[in-house]
Amino acid sequence: MDLSEGFIAVDWGTTNRRAYRIDPSGARGEEFEDGKGILSVAAGGFPEAIAEIRTRLGDLPLLLAGMIGSNRGWVEAKYVACPAGIGDLADALVWAGEREAIVPGVSYVGDGRGDVMRGEEVQLLGAVAGGQVPSRALVCHPGTHNKWVHVDKSRITSFRTVMTGELFNLLKQHSILADLLAGEAEAGDAFERGVTHALENADLPAELFAVRARVLLGEAQREDAPSYASGLLIGTDVRIGLSGLVPGDVFVMGRPELIRLYAAAIRSAGRKAIELDGEESFLTGIRTIAERIAN
Amino acid sequence: MDLSEGFIAVDWGTTNRRAYRIDPSGARGEEFEDGKGILSVAAGGFPEAIAEIRTRLGDLPLLLAGMIGSNRGWVEAKYVACPAGIGDLADALVWAGEREAIVPGVSYVGDGRGDVMRGEEVQLLGAVAGGQVPSRALVCHPGTHNKWVHVDKSRITSFRTVMTGELFNLLKQHSILADLLAGEAEAGDAFERGVTHALENADLPAELFAVRARVLLGEAQREDAPSYASGLLIGTDVRIGLSGLVPGDVFVMGRPELIRLYAAAIRSAGRKAIELDGEESFLTGIRTIAERIAN
Repeated sequence: MDLSEGFIAVDWGTTNRRAYRIDPSGARGEEFEDGKGILSVAAGGFPEAIAEIRTRLGDLPLLLAGMIGSNRGWVEAKYVACPAGIGDLADALVWAGEREAIVPGVSYVGDGRGDVMRGEEVQLLGAVAGGQVPSRALVCHPGTHNKWVHVDKSRITSFRTVMTGELFNLLKQHSILADLLAGEAEAGDAFERGVTHALENADLPAELFAVRARVLLGEAQREDAPSYASGLLIGTDVRIGLSGLVPGDVFVMGRPELIRLYAAAIRSAGRKAIELDGEESFLTGIRTIAERIAN
Repeated sequence: MDLSEGFIAVDWGTTNRRAYRIDPSGARGEEFEDGKGILSVAAGGFPEAIAEIRTRLGDLPLLLAGMIGSNRGWVEAKYVACPAGIGDLADALVWAGEREAIVPGVSYVGDGRGDVMRGEEVQLLGAVAGGQVPSRALVCHPGTHNKWVHVDKSRITSFRTVMTGELFNLLKQHSILADLLAGEAEAGDAFERGVTHALENADLPAELFAVRARVLLGEAQREDAPSYASGLLIGTDVRIGLSGLVPGDVFVMGRPELIRLYAAAIRSAGRKAIELDGEESFLTGIRTIAERIAN
């Protein structure tokens, strides 16, 4: 693909998309974010949604990552199996058109488990390529579905997904706890109590109900409920993620408000947490892929 | 209250109500069930909803149990604290009118926990009064919110709620697993695998995501997903419920399709499970309360 005039990098998720023009020098140019996630694009609507990006950022080649390559996206880009490095992603690009390449996701099968990711791999391997994450590391990538990722020799060797963010949203929007969870979760005392409980007890679906019971019985403050419940969920997630006995620091990348909560919970579990900017890492990752396919 | 002409017993829940005419002899007379749970009754609408019951079953005194006594119901009946026997419920009836009495719920505070029940206590203590459950027992009462209940000297001494049914419904209706969970869960091999996994691993929010990942990767059959996910949730529930080290048989009461699944999971955990009919026990409980207030 001819990238001599630069290209457009798109992180295209389920509910949002973010597009960046990358200049020939590699510099970050104009960009935008909107709510046109893959679920809002009707069948057959992707060529138009792509044309719209070019109208805004320029008539350039596109490198697309995220759910755009899923079976609900534009063209399916099958998963690359672990171990998967940034070169493996570049080698497995799927060409949706002559100037539109889709980055595949990564899959893991082992330990009697199976797991998949799509979107996080570019950020994560971008951070490795950029030197923010060492060639051997444990990475925590919070989001709707948090990913615990083992990196070795600069490749993703295994990972595990915990559906913490989605469970919190379900409880907040549709459950008997909905009215109690309306406020924002914050990394204070109530959050800390929830994390500590979850690190020491494996009783999440019982303790979640107790959030409501305690308020009804005057044993807990109503306003602490969102932070306590968030602490329970994230503490459970951290207990699961750290149970593999891999020692050392944990690199945490993703949305700032989430990485702050996860980093606090990881510190409560006695580990050092290093917070990273996921957006810059995405751009590093996508630039690295672009360099490999430029001709 | 003059019960010489019999009375009407109502089990009034969040989404349904069931009403029974009990004849002066104690025999079960006419009855009906409908979808007029408390959430479907508008503010101020209870007198009319009550009158409707009398139109159908007779102009008799009413004994009402369940969510009708909650803060979203007709008149609030505060919780009776553990230890609570059937006599304690009768002593704490709340009179919404001269001929309408509401049975209170039960609360537990201890071990740094707080918990509440409303509705299950009549069934449960009815089973004790009727001799189906011994005076000292561990009872499992599945529903939207499963209850693990310790009975001693014929009173509820402590209990713990696990929000298994609600979590399964949230996942089935609103989550990324929704399309996979559309079928019915059955107590076969896939259910058993889920139970075994959950009894041995405390990783529910990770393993739930793996249900989808395995199907995407061709590592599991799509049609097994509802039973496997149900097994994961119920197995987690059973692991939590049996973790108190109370030995002996487990009495399981509630809706038939649920008690079958729970009894299977309890047996997988190496315990004997005895299945009971919750409806008959409700009537035994409400008759016992009626005898105590008859004058």
